[in-house]
Amino acid sequence: MVERPLILVSNDDGVQAQGLRCLAHWLVSLADVIVVAPHEARSGAACSITTGKPVSVTRIEDTPGCRIYSCTGTPVDCVKLALDRLVPRSPALVVSGINHGDNASVSLHYSGTVGCVTEGCVRGIPSIAYSLMTRELKCDFTPYQKAVLHITSWVLQNGLAPGVFLNVNFPHVPLLQGIRVCRMARGRWESEWDDTSCEDTFRLGGHFVNLEPEADDTDYWALQHGIVSVTPLHIDVTDTPSLSQLQSLTLPIL
Amino acid sequence: MVERPLILVSNDDGVQAQGLRCLAHWLVSLADVIVVAPHEARSGAACSITTGKPVSVTRIEDTPGCRIYSCTGTPVDCVKLALDRLVPRSPALVVSGINHGDNASVSLHYSGTVGCVTEGCVRGIPSIAYSLMTRELKCDFTPYQKAVLHITSWVLQNGLAPGVFLNVNFPHVPLLQGIRVCRMARGRWESEWDDTSCEDTFRLGGHFVNLEPEADDTDYWALQHGIVSVTPLHIDVTDTPSLSQLQSLTLPIL
Repeated sequence: MVERPLILVSNDDGVQAQGLRCLAHWLVSLADVIVVAPHEARSGAACSITTGKPVSVTRIEDTPGCRIYSCTGTPVDCVKLALDRLVPRSPALVVSGINHGDNASVSLHYSGTVGCVTEGCVRGIPSIAYSLMTRELKCDFTPYQKAVLHITSWVLQNGLAPGVFLNVNFPHVPLLQGIRVCRMARGRWESEWDDTSCEDTFRLGGHFVNLEPEADDTDYWALQHGIVSVTPLHIDVTDTPSLSQLQSLTLPIL
Repeated sequence: MVERPLILVSNDDGVQAQGLRCLAHWLVSLADVIVVAPHEARSGAACSITTGKPVSVTRIEDTPGCRIYSCTGTPVDCVKLALDRLVPRSPALVVSGINHGDNASVSLHYSGTVGCVTEGCVRGIPSIAYSLMTRELKCDFTPYQKAVLHITSWVLQNGLAPGVFLNVNFPHVPLLQGIRVCRMARGRWESEWDDTSCEDTFRLGGHFVNLEPEADDTDYWALQHGIVSVTPLHIDVTDTPSLSQLQSLTLPIL
């Protein structure tokens, strides 16, 4: 009998999040699933790791094909700890999400959901982050099930190039208009700090601005047109053209 | 009279760190300096942001050419808050460090020092991260002063291409052997979790492994040969070759 593949699942909204539970439940149809996720919400955790204090992990559930652990660390800690200490065999995939909130354009840099799969990719495992463009904590994820299973199966079967991982975002629509492979939009967050009742104390808020709204080959454009965006990312973020352009910086001065 | 440029400085080792204080002190020779840095050490903070609770900032020092704020947020929060609420005019540069510990190869993904300048770059400001390959909290930074001022002056004068920022790492040697523009080495951390006295509780540790030790065009190779590595990074981490290679993933299935 051929052993089923193993998929490691994590997220940044915490182990009780609805998006994580849907994702893990669906993936049991493709593979054995092990979930290692933060015990509380860690939105905006990016690729942060826990230095200077210990991290604990607890097995909280065991159902056929799916074992769930809760971890006091960051999303990346969860993936690192799972791979080093918890998985019974090497996972075929690392999958994170489904995040409550999109991680398109530069938002991916702040995302713990994307952090999880950055770590999966560093470890040489094909990895996919899934996010949904709504901040609602309770919502209907069923419109996205078919696309999640299609993309996950595709990667299980075809793999990804070394150093490449996928950032998948779903528009919050009842009927998806398709799937598109696209690049990150240029964008940024603006007016990010809201005042509080206390002077010199602020709360992060703001809104995202797409700096190239007309470009139809970006993740943000796809989302705004009801299309699933699949953005391949690379772990090596070297800007290759600059390697030659910056040569005059190295004139002997020491 | 021409107004002096303004440089925003931050870090992830905290506002009292020696590396930050040296850097800010040196940069006053080039520009007015405003420091906004975490009130405590935030190593491994990556691009994390504070969601769900407020962030406070306090002005703690004012010396000629240099104003210093302490902030309860992450390194990226510090840069965001500085740019939105604290700077008197738009900075010419965002500079972070000098980090106590290198941020070469994939370590940059976990680095709050690199997080600061990722944010500077998102905001359209030329940005440079400086890190030193030692974890010592007290060390002699003077061997690096000349190179810091050279690289910073070069970027002040020449700028950087849109979306590009610099990750500079210093070897921990008394006499630098040169400056080299180089790409990220492929590498990863291994054996990362140390046991504690408590079962199911672990402490992050481990060691970095360079997966291409013979390649002489990488940041890690330069550092191991006493050479300063200058690695240009790009904010757009899309893997362009995959955009066409993944087309079969988008077959109509919905």
